[in-house]
Amino acid sequence: MAKILVIHGPNLNLLGGREVDIYGKFTLQEIDAELKKIAKVEKVELETFQSNHEGEIVEKIGKAKGKFDCILINPAAYTHTSVAIRDAISAVAIPTIEVHISNIYAREDFRRTSLIAPVAVGQVSGFGMNSYKLGLKAAIDIAKRRPH
Amino acid sequence: MAKILVIHGPNLNLLGGREVDIYGKFTLQEIDAELKKIAKVEKVELETFQSNHEGEIVEKIGKAKGKFDCILINPAAYTHTSVAIRDAISAVAIPTIEVHISNIYAREDFRRTSLIAPVAVGQVSGFGMNSYKLGLKAAIDIAKRRPH
Amino acid sequence: MAKILVIHGPNLNLLGGREVDIYGKFTLQEIDAELKKIAKVEKVELETFQSNHEGEIVEKIGKAKGKFDCILINPAAYTHTSVAIRDAISAVAIPTIEVHISNIYAREDFRRTSLIAPVAVGQVSGFGMNSYKLGLKAAIDIAKRRPH
Amino acid sequence: MAKILVIHGPNLNLLGGREVDIYGKFTLQEIDAELKKIAKVEKVELETFQSNHEGEIVEKIGKAKGKFDCILINPAAYTHTSVAIRDAISAVAIPTIEVHISNIYAREDFRRTSLIAPVAVGQVSGFGMNSYKLGLKAAIDIAKRRPH
Amino acid sequence: MAKILVIHGPNLNLLGGREVDIYGKFTLQEIDAELKKIAKVEKVELETFQSNHEGEIVEKIGKAKGKFDCILINPAAYTHTSVAIRDAISAVAIPTIEVHISNIYAREDFRRTSLIAPVAVGQVSGFGMNSYKLGLKAAIDIAKRRPH
Amino acid sequence: MAKILVIHGPNLNLLGGREVDIYGKFTLQEIDAELKKIAKVEKVELETFQSNHEGEIVEKIGKAKGKFDCILINPAAYTHTSVAIRDAISAVAIPTIEVHISNIYAREDFRRTSLIAPVAVGQVSGFGMNSYKLGLKAAIDIAKRRPH
Amino acid sequence: MAKILVIHGPNLNLLGGREVDIYGKFTLQEIDAELKKIAKVEKVELETFQSNHEGEIVEKIGKAKGKFDCILINPAAYTHTSVAIRDAISAVAIPTIEVHISNIYAREDFRRTSLIAPVAVGQVSGFGMNSYKLGLKAAIDIAKRRPH
Amino acid sequence: MAKILVIHGPNLNLLGGREVDIYGKFTLQEIDAELKKIAKVEKVELETFQSNHEGEIVEKIGKAKGKFDCILINPAAYTHTSVAIRDAISAVAIPTIEVHISNIYAREDFRRTSLIAPVAVGQVSGFGMNSYKLGLKAAIDIAKRRPH
Amino acid sequence: MAKILVIHGPNLNLLGGREVDIYGKFTLQEIDAELKKIAKVEKVELETFQSNHEGEIVEKIGKAKGKFDCILINPAAYTHTSVAIRDAISAVAIPTIEVHISNIYAREDFRRTSLIAPVAVGQVSGFGMNSYKLGLKAAIDIAKRRPH
Amino acid sequence: MAKILVIHGPNLNLLGGREVDIYGKFTLQEIDAELKKIAKVEKVELETFQSNHEGEIVEKIGKAKGKFDCILINPAAYTHTSVAIRDAISAVAIPTIEVHISNIYAREDFRRTSLIAPVAVGQVSGFGMNSYKLGLKAAIDIAKRRPH
Amino acid sequence: MAKILVIHGPNLNLLGGREVDIYGKFTLQEIDAELKKIAKVEKVELETFQSNHEGEIVEKIGKAKGKFDCILINPAAYTHTSVAIRDAISAVAIPTIEVHISNIYAREDFRRTSLIAPVAVGQVSGFGMNSYKLGLKAAIDIAKRRPH
Amino acid sequence: MAKILVIHGPNLNLLGGREVDIYGKFTLQEIDAELKKIAKVEKVELETFQSNHEGEIVEKIGKAKGKFDCILINPAAYTHTSVAIRDAISAVAIPTIEVHISNIYAREDFRRTSLIAPVAVGQVSGFGMNSYKLGLKAAIDIAKRRPH
Repeated sequence: MAKILVIHGPNLNLLGGREVDIYGKFTLQEIDAELKKIAKVEKVELETFQSNHEGEIVEKIGKAKGKFDCILINPAAYTHTSVAIRDAISAVAIPTIEVHISNIYAREDFRRTSLIAPVAVGQVSGFGMNSYKLGLKAAIDIAKRRPH
Repeated sequence: MAKILVIHGPNLNLLGGREVDIYGKFTLQEIDAELKKIAKVEKVELETFQSNHEGEIVEKIGKAKGKFDCILINPAAYTHTSVAIRDAISAVAIPTIEVHISNIYAREDFRRTSLIAPVAVGQVSGFGMNSYKLGLKAAIDIAKRRPH
Repeated sequence: MAKILVIHGPNLNLLGGREVDIYGKFTLQEIDAELKKIAKVEKVELETFQSNHEGEIVEKIGKAKGKFDCILINPAAYTHTSVAIRDAISAVAIPTIEVHISNIYAREDFRRTSLIAPVAVGQVSGFGMNSYKLGLKAAIDIAKRRPH
Repeated sequence: MAKILVIHGPNLNLLGGREVDIYGKFTLQEIDAELKKIAKVEKVELETFQSNHEGEIVEKIGKAKGKFDCILINPAAYTHTSVAIRDAISAVAIPTIEVHISNIYAREDFRRTSLIAPVAVGQVSGFGMNSYKLGLKAAIDIAKRRPH
Repeated sequence: MAKILVIHGPNLNLLGGREVDIYGKFTLQEIDAELKKIAKVEKVELETFQSNHEGEIVEKIGKAKGKFDCILINPAAYTHTSVAIRDAISAVAIPTIEVHISNIYAREDFRRTSLIAPVAVGQVSGFGMNSYKLGLKAAIDIAKRRPH
Repeated sequence: MAKILVIHGPNLNLLGGREVDIYGKFTLQEIDAELKKIAKVEKVELETFQSNHEGEIVEKIGKAKGKFDCILINPAAYTHTSVAIRDAISAVAIPTIEVHISNIYAREDFRRTSLIAPVAVGQVSGFGMNSYKLGLKAAIDIAKRRPH
Repeated sequence: MAKILVIHGPNLNLLGGREVDIYGKFTLQEIDAELKKIAKVEKVELETFQSNHEGEIVEKIGKAKGKFDCILINPAAYTHTSVAIRDAISAVAIPTIEVHISNIYAREDFRRTSLIAPVAVGQVSGFGMNSYKLGLKAAIDIAKRRPH
Repeated sequence: MAKILVIHGPNLNLLGGREVDIYGKFTLQEIDAELKKIAKVEKVELETFQSNHEGEIVEKIGKAKGKFDCILINPAAYTHTSVAIRDAISAVAIPTIEVHISNIYAREDFRRTSLIAPVAVGQVSGFGMNSYKLGLKAAIDIAKRRPH
Repeated sequence: MAKILVIHGPNLNLLGGREVDIYGKFTLQEIDAELKKIAKVEKVELETFQSNHEGEIVEKIGKAKGKFDCILINPAAYTHTSVAIRDAISAVAIPTIEVHISNIYAREDFRRTSLIAPVAVGQVSGFGMNSYKLGLKAAIDIAKRRPH
Repeated sequence: MAKILVIHGPNLNLLGGREVDIYGKFTLQEIDAELKKIAKVEKVELETFQSNHEGEIVEKIGKAKGKFDCILINPAAYTHTSVAIRDAISAVAIPTIEVHISNIYAREDFRRTSLIAPVAVGQVSGFGMNSYKLGLKAAIDIAKRRPH
Repeated sequence: MAKILVIHGPNLNLLGGREVDIYGKFTLQEIDAELKKIAKVEKVELETFQSNHEGEIVEKIGKAKGKFDCILINPAAYTHTSVAIRDAISAVAIPTIEVHISNIYAREDFRRTSLIAPVAVGQVSGFGMNSYKLGLKAAIDIAKRRPH
Repeated sequence: MAKILVIHGPNLNLLGGREVDIYGKFTLQEIDAELKKIAKVEKVELETFQSNHEGEIVEKIGKAKGKFDCILINPAAYTHTSVAIRDAISAVAIPTIEVHISNIYAREDFRRTSLIAPVAVGQVSGFGMNSYKLGLKAAIDIAKRRPH
């Protein structure tokens, strides 16, 4: 059975009560519940993880090797600053999909550069909670095609 | 019934026989067929259009006003050079979704800047033909929520 | 009798229904009518032309040689991206006046650079439909002083 | 009766004897006389002012509040260096029109950036003395539409 | 009673024994004692917190919502690199004041850009321990004016 | 008795009636009155000065040598353009404190660079009239510690 | 028999009457005649094509696949702005030679960057009509060495 | 007896199974064993430490003051992003040597800038495990010359 | 008899008591006295002028036309910020020599760009008071060769 | 009889055994032999020269004045770094043709800027040994048209 | 027996009497003597070479092919300016190690870019004479592993 | 007796016959003769040296230590490219004066940056042969004040 790791980056634990015009009214718990529903239907295993610590995300990825078929990550603020997370993704060589709730290309200039994108398979951004759901569909597609 | 316009930019008519390691082996006809299957299931109308001419794409978008609920566009090379297509999208104010077959962030530097992204709702890139399918799902979701 | 060519660039056919806070409520037809009134009073011939195609504008300018005394152009989106239109203006050596409806210097950064301005006689921007009327007055002044 | 303030920036007192290929042979007195003729015809009051001092221009603008309906300014060299004049225009919130005798976009690179343009209504440049006359027409149009 | 959270960023635990020509001879304990004296006089509650971990600071801010009326932060090195702390401040929408012991504008180039400043209310820098005391006064002023 | 010179840069004479959402509703006279109250309590002499002229500010600073113990300056627009004021501060070697009413780091890009900051002791910005009061407190602290 | 496609970009139809100090007095017809003479001698087939439309050039290249052994292109203004033509050349994978009549490195800055050069075999520039003739010789050499 | 602290930055715990063409096949344990052999021969004490957390590295350095004579650090990804680690090294003023397994100057552009290098004594990069061994030799040389 | 105008820019009235390691111990009066001695020997008329006001310098240059054969200017801080002084020099077309007491190329980055240099005949910098004396010699040489 | 000087820059003596995928398998001797064959047929005199020393190339060009009708140069590495060779070409005013074996626009960024190109007549690059032969043809054409 | 070539770049012949705070008090002769001692112990052949001429260094490298197993180079000033030396190293394909006496990353900005580093195996910098000794050890390690 | 070394950089041997509108009609021999006349009058020893080789100039400067009191150098093209000459000047610590015949600030952009200026005492440029004569006077003044 294919296994997918979902990683939520910094401040995403505040969803629902945070700048709702940019990020929407749903909570992280609601996102995870939605993703698990899809996983159940699609018959894949799903583990979710949120951390505000760059180092914890690095470690989570480091330990994912051999355990997960695909990573779905919303690196949030670390998208633009973390070479360490980028290196972790390269190191474990697990196909990784980057998602963003907001359209990062319609915001401040510094949000337009993703250090993660060049090592990811692909990117989904701007669709609110739907970014996660579409990203998960892409992840499942990739995970299922990998040998177990 | 919600209506969606799919626009394919320059050189996409060459898909299938073009740099297959970057763009895959499927043809434009195969993409359109896949998208129409989804449309049928989801009960939305779909029109597809390919052009190598910036001006024709500008005109297609200009005439979409009042006719379509959502635009799904792969602007291809014009992603990086066309202010005219960007202005057309702003002018008609139809929600627009940008898709890319390849991961444009893992290629030449000039491909990392999209003039379209800031006026689009969101972006899907890097999943091959799947970029279109995921983008269409996002489009359908938006189109169905609009009043007709 | 002096002859003036008025060229409207991409998306200007959408005027009136397009971002009215930036571009105003008047249509392209209304602009042309206003300009023709002035032309009649000033006893100059006027031809107007709109295209969304960079190539068509290039060709229109190329064929203007020997036929027109002055060109009045609102290059719209091509202001910022078209070396071809710039080269066409240089090639025919007809005095050219650049106009913009909105104040392009108070908008996005990429709109602050005009590839056309260095080969134009002068520029009028920011006065809504008045930009065209003032530009036409400048054009008439130049056209009348040229030998026929 | 609408009132318009015309401000001439540094070195414009030298017109007529200064780089005539760039700035023409007319003097500042001749410009002012031309503008006053138009004002008389159009039934608006006109005050003209020249200064080589950034601070004096800042003060003239500061005192214009409540007295003038529109400002017509050729900031000359201060176009490119004066945040203080820009701030004065923002502070008094009187609609302001920027004019230039020469085509500043066809000269040295540093002349292509105007600190004034983003806070002005619009800009006229490159038509010699005509830039002032066209700018005045735009100013009159705006001034007459303001309530007195 | 108004409540203020004081956050000290990385390496500030080393104050007193660290580059004393730049940072002075006082310790972090001495700063906190001084701030508490002021708080007592001004009748506000004060909590102080130091961390070398970007993630811990992000979490501290995230949990401050609804508990504190104002945040006083010396982000130290994270001033120049942390989008995550910036996002946390935006997310909780608590007025935040940025302080620096040294004059960051008189040091290396990379210290002149603060990612925090655009989302802070204001900034105090260069006055040694006094930066904190002045910042606290500003914070108290803001905190007292907020409804409890 | 310690003596402090307060310098207000260009357009600050317009305070109270100028962009009140950015600069507040208080007038320059009110600021000066507040500062004088503090000076009286703290038993320091205070002289205040406003000018829209870069040259006058340069001269005021030049003549301050040997007369004042500290300078409190809001250079306003000249913050970003005046090397002359910077050089004057360096020349007289009187400790100088820079204040700003608004948060200059949350505004246009060109306002983020201060030519004055590297030669100032420190900077206070973003607290409205409070910026002046906090800056004066810092100034008094410095002035009192200097030998007379 | 080897087949070579010659493509002339925008405004080259104006040759002979256009800025003769830069582009020379010969017409496009004369260039084509010269090239055909060489082709006859060298026993290669030659097709020539001129267009002012980026999209038409893209299509011409797209259809060249399997029909031509080598492309000789003077992209003119599109040299500096067309990612679409670059992508077309990459897509069809026909060896392509870039020629320029003038020395583009001795002109305006924006003419020094060619988007086409990195995907071309080589480049000839600065020799007037001779650039075409030398480029054709290089093309013939390449075309003859390809299997038919 | 001289004491040396060896710090391994993020993802180095993955060595041996990570991009072996860039980083080699040896594990972190093997590096540490090699370094300890050298330490034994040279009669210096050696402590090794790995962390994926920027904050933990900052703290480890902060606590090294007075305990270690030299630091040998491979900051890995934090080389390019951590002002906090740089400040920690400056704060404790222990001579520090920077090592890299790969030649960071032959990789992506962003890897060419080290925030650590300007505060380090020197740098060794590109020699695989040998970078550590050579760096340790340099460290021992420095540590032995310091008074204990 | 040839006439030379010497202009001293802002803060030069403070010479002698200002940063003596950069600018030396001599006063402006001493410089003027030295220059007058040379003028007497060389039989040229000399007028000296100091101002802290950009506008006054602009006016002084504007009025020099027809009265002086050469201008010797130390624009001081205005070297780097005044387009107005540059334009004044161009406007009067009097040969102008730029001098600097210090070596501006060995100081802060912003001092390395002179707006004046491109319109001056030449530049002398770095020789303390000698810069003026050498500059005057160059000026005399030029002034004497002009017809009177 | 027209005379042409061929100059080969640094490292070209290593051709044949050097990075054959970039530079081909032919030696410098073979290139010279090919060029001499053409010269014989075309009845022009040819001198060839190779040097690894910038200064020697500068001198060779300096002495070419009055002796040669055209220079054919492959400046190799000095293309990107030698102002001295550029100045030598300007100084002797002999028409000069720049050639490159490889397509310098498809390699490292720093190879895309040629200091020589702006003072050369034209440039041929990317055709292997053919670049020299085509360049020589252009040179002969120019040389023959010059008066002897 | 493995053979190593040591190349010292420009001005290194002045060591010992040159800026001793940056470069130390040892002479080039002393460095060479130290290196030869190590070579003797390690049983490798060593040739040392110093030149102030870029061209001579290029030639020395060019002739090293087939004779040396490794090159140890301190390119000194040519580090930052010589594409020719870089190309020579690429051309001969001998593994090359770059050393610097000083920490080039703690000096002027232009010293932070090495044109040599991307084609070297690795780099050692900042350890005074020790940089050479450590670099030689790395060189010996590489040289011994190569087949002879 | 004070001794001065005059160094002429590349291509200066061509003076008199080279771009006379930029460099004048005088030859290098005439410059040297003029300088020697001055030296004789001023009773200083003068040695002149011209080279087109960067390395020879480096060596000449290296050997000047202890022999010359001042260096007068026109680095010509090497002004903008030679770190080696800059380092040589720093290494010998002889006061050095930089001269230029033309006004380098009124020419191409790349000529506006001098690598030599920051390590020179001062700079004279733009006065034709007079630049040398004024520079020599400055040199004599410095040389005479040094102890012998």
